Amino acid sequence: MAFNSFGKLLKVTTYGESHGTAIGGVIDGFPAGLKIDLEAIQNELNRRKPGQSKIVTQRKEPDTVEFLSGIFEEKTTGTSIGFIIRNTNQKSKDYNHNTNVYRPSHADYTYDKKFGGRDYRGGGRSSARETANWVVAGALAKQLIASMEINAFTSSVGDIFIDKPYQDLDFSKTENNIVRCPDESSADKMIAKIQEIRKAGDTIGGTITCVAQNIPVGLGEPIFNKLHAELGKAMLSINAVKGFEFGSGFCGAKMKGSEHNDIFNADGSTESNLSGGIQGGISNGMDIYFRVAFKPVATIMTNQQTINSDYEVREITGKGRHDPCVVPRAVPIVEAMTALVLADFWLLNKTRKI
Amino acid sequence: MAFNSFGKLLKVTTYGESHGTAIGGVIDGFPAGLKIDLEAIQNELNRRKPGQSKIVTQRKEPDTVEFLSGIFEEKTTGTSIGFIIRNTNQKSKDYNHNTNVYRPSHADYTYDKKFGGRDYRGGGRSSARETANWVVAGALAKQLIASMEINAFTSSVGDIFIDKPYQDLDFSKTENNIVRCPDESSADKMIAKIQEIRKAGDTIGGTITCVAQNIPVGLGEPIFNKLHAELGKAMLSINAVKGFEFGSGFCGAKMKGSEHNDIFNADGSTESNLSGGIQGGISNGMDIYFRVAFKPVATIMTNQQTINSDYEVREITGKGRHDPCVVPRAVPIVEAMTALVLADFWLLNKTRKI
Amino acid sequence: MAFNSFGKLLKVTTYGESHGTAIGGVIDGFPAGLKIDLEAIQNELNRRKPGQSKIVTQRKEPDTVEFLSGIFEEKTTGTSIGFIIRNTNQKSKDYNHNTNVYRPSHADYTYDKKFGGRDYRGGGRSSARETANWVVAGALAKQLIASMEINAFTSSVGDIFIDKPYQDLDFSKTENNIVRCPDESSADKMIAKIQEIRKAGDTIGGTITCVAQNIPVGLGEPIFNKLHAELGKAMLSINAVKGFEFGSGFCGAKMKGSEHNDIFNADGSTESNLSGGIQGGISNGMDIYFRVAFKPVATIMTNQQTINSDYEVREITGKGRHDPCVVPRAVPIVEAMTALVLADFWLLNKTRKI
Amino acid sequence: MAFNSFGKLLKVTTYGESHGTAIGGVIDGFPAGLKIDLEAIQNELNRRKPGQSKIVTQRKEPDTVEFLSGIFEEKTTGTSIGFIIRNTNQKSKDYNHNTNVYRPSHADYTYDKKFGGRDYRGGGRSSARETANWVVAGALAKQLIASMEINAFTSSVGDIFIDKPYQDLDFSKTENNIVRCPDESSADKMIAKIQEIRKAGDTIGGTITCVAQNIPVGLGEPIFNKLHAELGKAMLSINAVKGFEFGSGFCGAKMKGSEHNDIFNADGSTESNLSGGIQGGISNGMDIYFRVAFKPVATIMTNQQTINSDYEVREITGKGRHDPCVVPRAVPIVEAMTALVLADFWLLNKTRKI
Repeated sequence: MAFNSFGKLLKVTTYGESHGTAIGGVIDGFPAGLKIDLEAIQNELNRRKPGQSKIVTQRKEPDTVEFLSGIFEEKTTGTSIGFIIRNTNQKSKDYNHNTNVYRPSHADYTYDKKFGGRDYRGGGRSSARETANWVVAGALAKQLIASMEINAFTSSVGDIFIDKPYQDLDFSKTENNIVRCPDESSADKMIAKIQEIRKAGDTIGGTITCVAQNIPVGLGEPIFNKLHAELGKAMLSINAVKGFEFGSGFCGAKMKGSEHNDIFNADGSTESNLSGGIQGGISNGMDIYFRVAFKPVATIMTNQQTINSDYEVREITGKGRHDPCVVPRAVPIVEAMTALVLADFWLLNKTRKI
Repeated sequence: MAFNSFGKLLKVTTYGESHGTAIGGVIDGFPAGLKIDLEAIQNELNRRKPGQSKIVTQRKEPDTVEFLSGIFEEKTTGTSIGFIIRNTNQKSKDYNHNTNVYRPSHADYTYDKKFGGRDYRGGGRSSARETANWVVAGALAKQLIASMEINAFTSSVGDIFIDKPYQDLDFSKTENNIVRCPDESSADKMIAKIQEIRKAGDTIGGTITCVAQNIPVGLGEPIFNKLHAELGKAMLSINAVKGFEFGSGFCGAKMKGSEHNDIFNADGSTESNLSGGIQGGISNGMDIYFRVAFKPVATIMTNQQTINSDYEVREITGKGRHDPCVVPRAVPIVEAMTALVLADFWLLNKTRKI
Repeated sequence: MAFNSFGKLLKVTTYGESHGTAIGGVIDGFPAGLKIDLEAIQNELNRRKPGQSKIVTQRKEPDTVEFLSGIFEEKTTGTSIGFIIRNTNQKSKDYNHNTNVYRPSHADYTYDKKFGGRDYRGGGRSSARETANWVVAGALAKQLIASMEINAFTSSVGDIFIDKPYQDLDFSKTENNIVRCPDESSADKMIAKIQEIRKAGDTIGGTITCVAQNIPVGLGEPIFNKLHAELGKAMLSINAVKGFEFGSGFCGAKMKGSEHNDIFNADGSTESNLSGGIQGGISNGMDIYFRVAFKPVATIMTNQQTINSDYEVREITGKGRHDPCVVPRAVPIVEAMTALVLADFWLLNKTRKI
Repeated sequence: MAFNSFGKLLKVTTYGESHGTAIGGVIDGFPAGLKIDLEAIQNELNRRKPGQSKIVTQRKEPDTVEFLSGIFEEKTTGTSIGFIIRNTNQKSKDYNHNTNVYRPSHADYTYDKKFGGRDYRGGGRSSARETANWVVAGALAKQLIASMEINAFTSSVGDIFIDKPYQDLDFSKTENNIVRCPDESSADKMIAKIQEIRKAGDTIGGTITCVAQNIPVGLGEPIFNKLHAELGKAMLSINAVKGFEFGSGFCGAKMKGSEHNDIFNADGSTESNLSGGIQGGISNGMDIYFRVAFKPVATIMTNQQTINSDYEVREITGKGRHDPCVVPRAVPIVEAMTALVLADFWLLNKTRKI
């Protein structure tokens, strides 16, 4: 069934609670013979790790990945790749006050009802700490499909949006600022916004846009494994995500066919690209682009009313070290999940015609 | 791998091209002992079928489903349920002019490149005719989870939106009009809009909202099978869909945590429901609601420039009988896919605690 | 979950009861662009069909397969291949006396207890009629891996065994006799034995040996998809099978390592082949051979004591038209399932190294 | 695809090479709320571990399992259970002489050809060390289905067989001797045989019989997940296994229907049990019993001719510390895999009727 697995031919299966011993996973189906750059993987983890700047959680955790199998003499062997990231900086006592109390808009209540109990320390399995596993797997996938370029970036924080099409942005600037927005003037405003929100003990939502370029024609399957459906599922799997749109997205729903159709150029490319690089669920070689909506983090530093597991009304105030906005740290996660989806379909495509 | 399967425990696997002999599928994992109302299934198919009103395609096709196995003496037997819908009204010659020509914003180009050839008659496998299979499976799923209520409706056509929250709508009115909008005054405007668009030989997009009520707490899995991620994947599998959002959706990305959090009532329900009935990927018993964006149909009745498979520039004009707006016929499809997702998780939940 | 599916990349999903409307299935993952010989598929079905000789059931059923999708202009399109075989000669009234009675060593009792009811006509889903579906899928798979040669044959009936190694047999003679034994003198004895058994109203078991030659090195996965484990599962899925052994098999368990090891020749082949062409779960290019044990058919024409669903003791005598020995008709089934396993791994192997 | 996964609802995914850093895995789908006896799990590992007696490999390795997630306050949480077993006693230099040389009847040649390279230290992924992972998963599964009794034992070594039916054996004596044979006089002969073989630098095969009792009626699925087919696949996945038979097995292939049928008693049990507790792929509540054939270990301490990867002829002599007979240590592995299969179907059965 694979409740904790993602992918078809290239499949990652994960485990781990935020305050358990370790998180980790198994990557199955990775082809043999690829030289792996381990440092590049750790670099991706560093982009996601806590404590990296003043606008993210101040928790310090090195998030060092250890590979346990499947890579020998620097190359993949074709056997399953086990990896582990030890948890080193859990302050479980930050959560003692929550043992019995359901934090609003968290997964506490639903886990408790579903499973008849839960690991209450830091969200347990529902913690976004899990996404470090995905970044490891995604970083490996990126190396498998090295010719494809995947660039995600923060496209809005609250009501501050980049007011340019992605074609006018220079993705090499994304890492130049701590909010991961390639448009410098927008970045400054976003950072100021997050700092203001943090000081108020509050949190704020935002969006990430992802652009995948240099994509071969033919990725994706016609019916239930449409490329955009798998991308959508991948994005909606990320904690705090509330929406996904690709190409023309929700705006497309207001348009007429005569406006929306992408007319072919003589070389098979299209003049416009409202399709977002995907037609009939299959990549057409144009840029793939999509947008992901993140709600504000549910843990806020101000008082909220709630209930406990005995249905008694309680007051709760966030403790611990939390992100005022998840978006900057989610950028590498969006890229990782995109890489996993693309690599899986790329591998699969080797089997789809004789 | 299951390119043509949807679901985990309750799994539907389908086949069929729009102008082939038949479409159909196999439903696997359906529990034994449920009395099946076959007429109710045919009724759902009738809601989707072509030719049902003046604002949909005028193609006439009865879409009669025949069950071949798995139902005996009116009850499910626990074995796989095979079904078939014969194609009866194909006018393949409507497509002769397209044999070699790629229709803009269709799947012609991508199928051809992916597979090295394609069934060019009416889109072949990429045709939305496939969704009749889903309606059959979804109608069975609805009977399995009869206590849950699933209501989808047309919430916008072009720039005409219902301007009320769903709580103010009476879903029993959805079927009262041909656009399937429970708000009568909006419905009238939508119908007029579609007729205007049709006369111009053009097409128009729209959105569908779906509300699932009376949902047990605990549906959905924590990590890669989050309830909303599976719903998103299901919706993004429907032809012409460009976006999915649930609960606060893209609006939530502009909000602060102090505004967005759903405060608990003493009974475990929440005051607001920006979570959209899902927290941490698991249903919390509140209404699940989400919105799906459909682009305008790509086949228009006016001239467009395009290319053929030899990369020669050609002119193309839509022929055949097409929908000016897919949304009215997509309402039962959205409900069917929602039912499949919910039934699958409901079944699965029987195994998740001792 | 796929209770009714077999295969990974090349996956067949089936449905159908022996006395329902039809049986059939969906073949998913078949690569695009293969020219299909439909007559060859029907020929394989004819090898399995009832009524073909005096030593099999005298039921007459044409077993004509109709393809519904996925093949266009004689080539596979890469989309799912639906097929159907109508049931035409059910004599359900032969089973009226069994409605409530459990036939000994059949699946009546277990189906009834598992599902709380069953289709009692001819065994329903438990009937070996299902294997006609497998022969269709296997015949397609054979065409995909046309360079590999798969030859199954009857190697024993009761205590009559071929007393030669397979290397001394001429597989082109297998179809020369109705018991499908390439050794003529053994064949004569087997046929006489089956006729004698049939006259006594009894049934008899037997074994099938299968030899797969011209196999590429590298098919099979190291751990849970070992080539021989998948072959074993495939064979044990066939009705009436009680055992599977490959290479040295149960005899190998009596041997010493110094006797059993297959010494390499300079070209990578091995002198002996007790490994049966598979080492560590992966084909080594030598002949793959294995043996499958079939129990005697449970339906006999003499009186047996049994019980009904109210746990009342009853007498039962077989009616209807049954095989005195399943082995001759099972030969094409063994080949079909072997072809499915090999084709699946062959396809998969395209993805296992860069 | 899950090359390294076993199970459907209860799924274990593993990784690890014999001379890598660690082996381990993820157990997915385990229901929440079961109190776990960790000591019982370690005890099962101890039954499998090397160095436990004079007739097994003298390698010393503690095989200590560490659980990393999914168990909280001694209970399962419903989330995935990660575990790791560090490798502590690898003597990789024992294998330096093999870097380039293919050991006869090992997986060296096939891995190398399949993947274009291999981890040559101790067999890498092909080592039976992997089965320690299975014992962990199986020990957890045993606790989930605690009411079912699973007893495997050594039933033959070379040509020394227990000459009694299993009903005459006292399974509580299996652990009384180092060969794990509950029949004491046979055990003595088997031990003597293995010691004689070891002294000669040779190895020997054997069989394990497994009996599962107190099994609920209804486990197993009709078509491609027959209970015996899954058991067969599980057994054939174990290193060195060459054959599997259940119930009457290969002997059944010589019998007549009138001899083979199991006549019902008035309570639904059967007088005889040649079916081996499984009819139509589904358990009937009678004892399940089956037999597994193990070939002799391929590593022998005498000279053998072989080739290297340049196809040059070489001489090879086994070094390192190897088992003269795998059977005694394989007994807990057979039980573990049986437990996994039964637990998976038991869990699944909760979903098969309304």
